[in-house]
Parts: sequence; structure tokens; C-alpha cells
Amino acid sequence: MPLLFDRVTIVGVGLIGGSLGLAMREKGLAGRIVGVGHRQASIDLALKMGAIDEGSLDPSAAVMGADLVVLATGIGLIMEVGRRIVPALKRDAVVTDVGSTKTDVVRALEPAMPAGVHFVGAHPIAGSEKRGVDAATAGLFRGATTVVTPTKRTDPDAARKVAELWSAVGAHVVTLSPEEHDAILARTSHLPHVAAAALVATLRPPDAGFAGTGFRDATRIASGDVNIWCDIILTNREAILSALWAFSDELAAFRRAVESNDRVKLAELLSAAKQRRDSL
Amino acid sequence: MPLLFDRVTIVGVGLIGGSLGLAMREKGLAGRIVGVGHRQASIDLALKMGAIDEGSLDPSAAVMGADLVVLATGIGLIMEVGRRIVPALKRDAVVTDVGSTKTDVVRALEPAMPAGVHFVGAHPIAGSEKRGVDAATAGLFRGATTVVTPTKRTDPDAARKVAELWSAVGAHVVTLSPEEHDAILARTSHLPHVAAAALVATLRPPDAGFAGTGFRDATRIASGDVNIWCDIILTNREAILSALWAFSDELAAFRRAVESNDRVKLAELLSAAKQRRDSL
Repeated sequence: MPLLFDRVTIVGVGLIGGSLGLAMREKGLAGRIVGVGHRQASIDLALKMGAIDEGSLDPSAAVMGADLVVLATGIGLIMEVGRRIVPALKRDAVVTDVGSTKTDVVRALEPAMPAGVHFVGAHPIAGSEKRGVDAATAGLFRGATTVVTPTKRTDPDAARKVAELWSAVGAHVVTLSPEEHDAILARTSHLPHVAAAALVATLRPPDAGFAGTGFRDATRIASGDVNIWCDIILTNREAILSALWAFSDELAAFRRAVESNDRVKLAELLSAAKQRRDSL
Repeated sequence: MPLLFDRVTIVGVGLIGGSLGLAMREKGLAGRIVGVGHRQASIDLALKMGAIDEGSLDPSAAVMGADLVVLATGIGLIMEVGRRIVPALKRDAVVTDVGSTKTDVVRALEPAMPAGVHFVGAHPIAGSEKRGVDAATAGLFRGATTVVTPTKRTDPDAARKVAELWSAVGAHVVTLSPEEHDAILARTSHLPHVAAAALVATLRPPDAGFAGTGFRDATRIASGDVNIWCDIILTNREAILSALWAFSDELAAFRRAVESNDRVKLAELLSAAKQRRDSL
């Protein structure tokens, strides 16, 4: 594979940032990778695992001279650190992120970039309940979808470079507007998270011993990190509220079929859901 | 292990019935096991796998002389066949079932039994999306919970025998009234099924490619057999409607926190759900 970037700085060497470092090194995509963490222990582990060549606790110092900066922290910190590093960015640098919601991030960071620096939003749909660089693997993005979210103002060359990076680490790259991304992810990820949490909240004291594999699978995502999920949900409020109303309508259709003991209608609803689920 | 029953007839040699046959034979719990199927092919397979000693297509002929009859078909058929075999049952026989809802089944079959024959409802909480005797294993019930649902009218000796059977094949036996069972399972199994189907129904055309592991896990149960689930849902309508209303209330609490951009409240709701899910 050709060298895509001479110097890359990854801000946040957790599961996603660490996996990206490992994958870029495995494919030889970067000349040098600098990793930024907020704890020396994670930096040391990332160095030991070979996810980065150099570690730093200071984002501004670390991005100096970088051709590509990847903001791989939680969403709140992506917007904060993204603004903070602006004075230290070199001309022609490309800045990207890995946040799970895109509209707020892109609106905050695109206009904040200095002349000659280009921001491109991105979201690799990968990861798990696991967190931290110790769970990072070079293969995390292989076969996963990464959404790149350029706007009318995005430099096409910068968007192409970011797409190339994700393709090179094995992801299937899809281009969407930030708003399209957020509407889709509200239905495929954020609503299911809220529904799982609400299912758990519906349990009553005697129920715990009777939760079988089905319940466990259906609610596994409710174990996700609370702060990360507050960030995700509160930066995608409108789309999540729409998804919640649409979900309530679907639930009401089931409720009416049960209330009226309508087997034909119930079978029709279950059957349509089964067919769509089986086709995923 | 001691012989628990001299002659056992299992009506329905699918995943549950076939696994029970395999487990009883492995532990030497029955003198002879007769299996009833509605297709000769499943009977032949059950015989070949060693799940039964003898096969039959005729439930009434097969239950003659049986000390224990296990109704292991879908719920609709449990009630129908349970009534149909009455004239053929021998005095002192114990009749039990494995249906996923209990109130309707117990109300239908308990009073239908002739003098000296005892019905005891039961529900092994085991199984998967898989169906059919080819998926049966002797270990299916090991570590699983089986609920036994005696009523005031149930013969204590018959209830003890049924509980012994399930303990002997490795299940953790819990005794509940049919109504308690149905209320709990509405929240731990039936509501999650409806919610999963409604989540799938909420997807819009562009979404399919963006459904990651989280969505797949959360909606796996929506792939369950439509007829089996119509039977389950329509024989537990009241409890499922209560669970649906409780779930709607929990969803509304999340919706209000999102609408009012209330991070403290949202974190509290997510955190409570995470703690309960982690403790399962």
C-alpha cells in the first residue's frame, strides 16, 4: 500500500484510535503516528502494542506538523479539543473525527478550521461494549462500514484522502450528509439503545432470574458507557425524537392487534418484521 | 439416577421434546420413551438420534399405558391434543406440557383430565431461534430455569414428580402460579419480542446497510417463528398489554429527558438501566 500521510496524530488512543493506529501501521499507511492520551498508562500501553510511534499528553504539541489529525475521543471532547488545537495546525492539514453523531460535530469544527486546513467528518461503525486501547485490534474496521460526511464546503481532495484511509484499513466507505447520517443512525443505533434501556427499566423485582438469552441479547447494548451515550443522544436529539415517535407508532400497531385479538393482523406485523430482520 | 417413570410419551419431538428425550435417556430416567410427531421424517430422525425408543403418528395410541405424558408442541396444539388424548390416558398418569404461556393452557387442561389423572403445567426457559429435532441436544436444559406452575387443585405428588424430572435433566426448577409466570415472561420475553419487531419496522429504506452488531443483537428475536409467537402473544394478552403500557411509560421518561435536553436525568435513566443489565 502507498504511504497516505507522512505524519498522523491520533487524539484519543482508545478502542477506535488504537485500532486505527494498529491498522495504519500494519498497512504502512503513515510515516509516523503520534498518539495523544489523557493518561500516561494508556499511552504506554499503546506504544507497547505498537499502535503509535510516539505518545503525548498535550494535543496542541502533538498535532504540530501533522498531515492528518484524527479526533478519536468521545463526542464532547472531539468538539472541545478540535477547537483547542486550531492554532497548532499546519497549513494543508486534514482534520477528521470518528464521532458517532455528525451534524453537531461538523457544524462546530468545519467553520473553526483556519485557512488551508480542511475538516472532514467520519464515523467508522465498529466497536463494541469494550473500551480502551487494550481491546484494540488491527482488524476492527475490516468489513465494517465507515460513513464519511462531507458538506458543500468540504474540500473534495481532503474528503477523498479520508475515504482512502478508511478503505485502506478494510472499511466499506459510504458518503452521506451529516444530517442523513444522523437520521439513519438514530434508527439503527440510538433508538435501539434507548429501547434496550427502557426494556431493562420495565423489569420488576421478581424478573431477573427469568431473563433468558433472548432478553440478554436484546438488551446487551444497555450496558454501554453512560457518558458516551449521553453525548451521542444529546447531540442527535431531533433525529432521535423522530425515531422514538415512529417507534411508538409501530408499537401501537402491535398493541391494537393484541387488544383486538386480531391474529391475522398480528401475524402480518410479525411476518413483515421477520422478513426484514432475516434479510439484514 | 433412579428411574422416574416407567413409560413416557413425548408428544412433539422438536427441539424441546427431542432434547428432553435425549436428556432422559442419557440419565436413565425412563424405562421406555415413545415419541409422537406429525411427520414420519421427524420421527425417524428422533429414533436415529436416540431421542426416543419408539415413534408414532397417533397421539391417542401413543399415550396408552404412559406414566408420564409431555405435551411438547406449540401452545395451540398443546390445548387441542391435550383434550384429544383424554380417553386414552391410564389412571394415575401425569400429564405435563412445555408451553411458553401457562394460564390458558392450565385453565384448559387441568379441568379436562379424568379422575386419577393429574395435569401439571411447566415451562423450560430454553431454546433458540433454531427449531426441529435436528437441533436437539441432551444438554439443552442444563443450567436453564424451568418454571413449574401448580394451582390449588394440582396433586402435590404429581407436581413433585414433574419438578424432579426437570431437576434431573439439569434445570433449575422454580415454582410459580400460572398467572405469576405469565406476568414475568411478558416482561422478560414477550415484550422484548414485540419491541424487537417494532424496532425492525421502524427502519426506513436507506437503513439496512447501517445496522451494526448492536442492532442485530437487539433484534435477533424478531426472527422467531411467526405462528409460535402469535400463539404465545394471543394466549398472554392481558399481561403483554400491561407490559407494553409500562414500557411506553419508560420510553416516555427517556423522551422527556431528550426533549428538555436534561443530561442529569438522561444519565440517571441510562445509569439505572446499565446497572440492572450488568447485574443480570
